[in-house]
Amino acid sequence: MRLRNVKGASDIIDASTYIIKNYKDYKGKYNTLFNNNNKLHIEIGMGKGNFIIEMAKRNPNINFIGIEKFDSVIVRALEKLDEEVSNLKLIRMDATEIEEVFYKEIDTIYLNFSDPWPKNRHEDRRLSSYKFLKRYDNLFKNSKNIIMKTDNRKLFEYSIISFTNYGYKIEEISLDLYNDEVGDNVQTEYEKKFHNLGLPIYKIVVKK
Amino acid sequence: MRLRNVKGASDIIDASTYIIKNYKDYKGKYNTLFNNNNKLHIEIGMGKGNFIIEMAKRNPNINFIGIEKFDSVIVRALEKLDEEVSNLKLIRMDATEIEEVFYKEIDTIYLNFSDPWPKNRHEDRRLSSYKFLKRYDNLFKNSKNIIMKTDNRKLFEYSIISFTNYGYKIEEISLDLYNDEVGDNVQTEYEKKFHNLGLPIYKIVVKK
Repeated sequence: MRLRNVKGASDIIDASTYIIKNYKDYKGKYNTLFNNNNKLHIEIGMGKGNFIIEMAKRNPNINFIGIEKFDSVIVRALEKLDEEVSNLKLIRMDATEIEEVFYKEIDTIYLNFSDPWPKNRHEDRRLSSYKFLKRYDNLFKNSKNIIMKTDNRKLFEYSIISFTNYGYKIEEISLDLYNDEVGDNVQTEYEKKFHNLGLPIYKIVVKK
Repeated sequence: MRLRNVKGASDIIDASTYIIKNYKDYKGKYNTLFNNNNKLHIEIGMGKGNFIIEMAKRNPNINFIGIEKFDSVIVRALEKLDEEVSNLKLIRMDATEIEEVFYKEIDTIYLNFSDPWPKNRHEDRRLSSYKFLKRYDNLFKNSKNIIMKTDNRKLFEYSIISFTNYGYKIEEISLDLYNDEVGDNVQTEYEKKFHNLGLPIYKIVVKK
């Protein structure tokens, strides 16, 4: 993602009630933050937040947490939150920390248009690498659900192999989402852009 | 495949030395037919034979058997065999019979541009269905290798799920073969046609 510096981003983020500051304190007990025992879905790398905000609005009985490390895009997400969305929170953190943040409480992880890290030597940085899948193992409450969308063919091919060889079963797969019934598909900012360019959007739903 | 009647096809097939007539007699001992213990690769639904003939010519140390049920296309394959190819044989049969024909002797099965049988009620006819994967189980000598190519997105999506849920591991996958290094890829007649129309060609290599 190309990032511009957003002036005062840090202050805006610090002032927002959507941002969980002491996020490590909630490890294993995020339900207390939401005051309910609803399912918890997280998006790793939420970018400008269109997907997770819209998902939260459409699914009031699920709790959502968006994770993002860059201030300049978190700030764009906050700008979209003009009305109260009580089942949504955001965390500014690096995904590599994730095991210190959640424990046996997540239902579904969304990986949308993640950085493909195309070089072999950067494989471990891909959010669908064994390295990350191993990190996710103890985050889930019951069954492990991951839903990935991307326009990047190489990342998608890699991820199909990585998920299945790691023991995930494929529940759904589409190699051209917009030529299938998209139903209640919620677009990310990237997705909109790449779909408008005529590129196929890939989607996979896996479970373990 | 749209089939035309080819006049005299049956006579031409009966007269060809490439066709194994009493194929059930060789079950478990096809090596005696080839007079060697080389690996055996088969293609189920070889159509007009371009792929298997070219593979046999390029790989003299592997034995190849092409299977096809329609006379009208087998005859087209025979027309291409103007020179002796000693490591190639053909069988006219329906794939559902396959367990009566081979036993613990195959190394690799090729499924090229197979009929997608798009209706749910015809699922069992797809060559990558559980029904067929179960039939293949006892055909293989050591590890089970299946290599599929298709232009049919829905069949490919289905097959990825079927192979992996049946216990196959993905060794290679391409969602756009002609935008990868195709290396020594051997084209089928269909592949050439669909690639020339600008459609992506999908390929998967699985092992169990």
